[in-house]
Amino acid sequence: MKTLDKGVCAPKGFHAAAVAAGIKKPDATRLDCAMIASDAPAAVAGVFTTNLVQAAPVRYCREACERGVARAIVANSGNANACTGDQGYADVLATAALAGRLIDAPPEQVCVCSTGVIGVPMPMDRLLRGVEQCAAKLSDQNGGDAARAIMTTDTVPKEIAAEIPLGAGAVRIGAIAKGAGMIAPNMATMLCFITTDVAVDADNLQSLLQKAVAISFNCICVDNDMSTNDTALCLANGRSGVSLLPGTVDFERFGDALNEICLSLAQALVRDGEGATKFIAIIVSGAATDADAKRIAASVAKSQLCKTAFYGQDANWGRIAAAAGYSGARFDPAGLDLHIQGVHVLAQGQPTAYSEADVQALMKAPEIEVRISLREGAGAATFWTSDLSLDYIKINADYRT
Amino acid sequence: MKTLDKGVCAPKGFHAAAVAAGIKKPDATRLDCAMIASDAPAAVAGVFTTNLVQAAPVRYCREACERGVARAIVANSGNANACTGDQGYADVLATAALAGRLIDAPPEQVCVCSTGVIGVPMPMDRLLRGVEQCAAKLSDQNGGDAARAIMTTDTVPKEIAAEIPLGAGAVRIGAIAKGAGMIAPNMATMLCFITTDVAVDADNLQSLLQKAVAISFNCICVDNDMSTNDTALCLANGRSGVSLLPGTVDFERFGDALNEICLSLAQALVRDGEGATKFIAIIVSGAATDADAKRIAASVAKSQLCKTAFYGQDANWGRIAAAAGYSGARFDPAGLDLHIQGVHVLAQGQPTAYSEADVQALMKAPEIEVRISLREGAGAATFWTSDLSLDYIKINADYRT
Repeated sequence: MKTLDKGVCAPKGFHAAAVAAGIKKPDATRLDCAMIASDAPAAVAGVFTTNLVQAAPVRYCREACERGVARAIVANSGNANACTGDQGYADVLATAALAGRLIDAPPEQVCVCSTGVIGVPMPMDRLLRGVEQCAAKLSDQNGGDAARAIMTTDTVPKEIAAEIPLGAGAVRIGAIAKGAGMIAPNMATMLCFITTDVAVDADNLQSLLQKAVAISFNCICVDNDMSTNDTALCLANGRSGVSLLPGTVDFERFGDALNEICLSLAQALVRDGEGATKFIAIIVSGAATDADAKRIAASVAKSQLCKTAFYGQDANWGRIAAAAGYSGARFDPAGLDLHIQGVHVLAQGQPTAYSEADVQALMKAPEIEVRISLREGAGAATFWTSDLSLDYIKINADYRT
Repeated sequence: MKTLDKGVCAPKGFHAAAVAAGIKKPDATRLDCAMIASDAPAAVAGVFTTNLVQAAPVRYCREACERGVARAIVANSGNANACTGDQGYADVLATAALAGRLIDAPPEQVCVCSTGVIGVPMPMDRLLRGVEQCAAKLSDQNGGDAARAIMTTDTVPKEIAAEIPLGAGAVRIGAIAKGAGMIAPNMATMLCFITTDVAVDADNLQSLLQKAVAISFNCICVDNDMSTNDTALCLANGRSGVSLLPGTVDFERFGDALNEICLSLAQALVRDGEGATKFIAIIVSGAATDADAKRIAASVAKSQLCKTAFYGQDANWGRIAAAAGYSGARFDPAGLDLHIQGVHVLAQGQPTAYSEADVQALMKAPEIEVRISLREGAGAATFWTSDLSLDYIKINADYRT
């Protein structure tokens, strides 16, 4: 897998554009409206928030994914178009209609995604002007702009692209994502747009995407709040001329690459988590099942007290043991082992004679590894999380003001 | 119900004492060891953490409650005696043995409770000396000292006592509690000791206590981390000469008083939550079931983003709607109504034309009321929570250092 430039424009036949449409701030200095378009109809797959309170664009994109064909994605930041009622849905339809007309595609082949503040009507005049401007400047040079345009409290854009050599020829995958806050497992508060020039039908694309999301975006946590707008979309336009069929080596190899790309973006979201000063991996093994291992990893990754201790660079393993204990997974506490930064701090449920000073010193690293081992079976899982810092509170106490 | 002084010593036949035993700090300036004793064997009931990782005293107290008879409670702060293995359990037995000898009671009738740091061996020499000193100074004047001795990061002691006029005569209930951090529903990280001079058997006392805990300590939240040591104990020594029998008006009246006392202490824990600047009630009605209402109330009460918005005095109802939506309760978002401080901000899933400035002004109050109404049925529940502040992070990033 060879790294490429150009993000979502790396695969053949994809173009992008982004403009400052004035949705984040009326004075329009920050990119906040993006378009990604394929020059041929693409198979489309999507994974969405499981929140009952879903933004209008999420409800709309679900339907687009059920039809299985898309030509473009229009996305804005600064306004989530959530809790906006019938008008919110009508606004999505109007956005898709305009974008479809501009790129000569049926409106129902235009996906529309939003992220930002909940409960504020979309400023449609500004959004539609932004869509017009995007359509006029679509190019394969603007992948980076699209990555920047979907940022909210993100401090850095997240994009990645790679070429995957398959038996039948090389294909490309490009992707951008945004996250930072409201990042909870199932799924993160995030948008992720993936493009690829492989040829694959929508059903198989859906199953590949679901697998990739399960081990990436569904295994990260910043603040446990599941948003109303989470969306991961993947468009496959077939322009490489290489077809994927399930059961083949190529199918598996492509799936591995997609997993790797999603994992890389998911980890980038955690690294850029709101106020984050640490990147923490919670690695669980020896659980009765993989599901139990995931419960334990998630419980520790989500624990406010563990996350605050990571921020304080405190190897407070008692909080980790407590969070494992209330995870809902069954295990014998007498078989619990904990390693923090490679130091064995708890052996079969009892503290070891480790040096507190040594572990404290290791906790100063920007990346922390917590290993939790049980003696129940072969279940394993890993979660990635950020610490809970003073800056997280400052960012979120003032988000709307 | 008439308020009394003397806390756990208000009921007849209960005495208490507390000393600075040097468990919190070796220089022994803060009370950290307490004893509460009844001059007659008392029925005992207990509710405990459901965490799989349970401190040694919790495992021990469960057994005491199964036997149903207790003479005393010994409690310390500064050390949780959790994750301390076989030695931890042996230390509990040694503590109970000494206390039993000192007050002339069988050791298995002495409950032992601990709260504080996890994973540090109990300094037994200091604890046992503290127990000796407590036994020597038991008096009905020391209820307040006992309340102070169980504090960890609490900033104020929590105690309450009342006289309840029953048909067969007056009885008294006294109670102390500690909390502040690791406060999650089911149950809070807390200790609560309740004394009463009513005569009731252990089974009925257990059912009364469970009901009281369900609507009080299990409906509060500070930080969602369930501790290894949560314990609520109730001792009923019968010294009032008034007996309680199930199915009677007196039984119900006593139950109501116990509920009220537990609720008052639970709310006091939230008010004194680590770093808390606000006390927030989340009141849910119109859910399909009470259980669904509790799910929604708990989800909002636990949401890091909602709690941070409360701290920021921001009426960010989008986060409240989102937290309701991911609670796991089923409801139609189109029937969702939200009131913040009495202002109707969301009506049937859509924002009202409320004045943001008015709500912001109301959010400056120290107590916030959030009402969530659905159109699913008659299910209702209330949760109480604190805000998530900069001070919470400061307190918990440095707890052990």
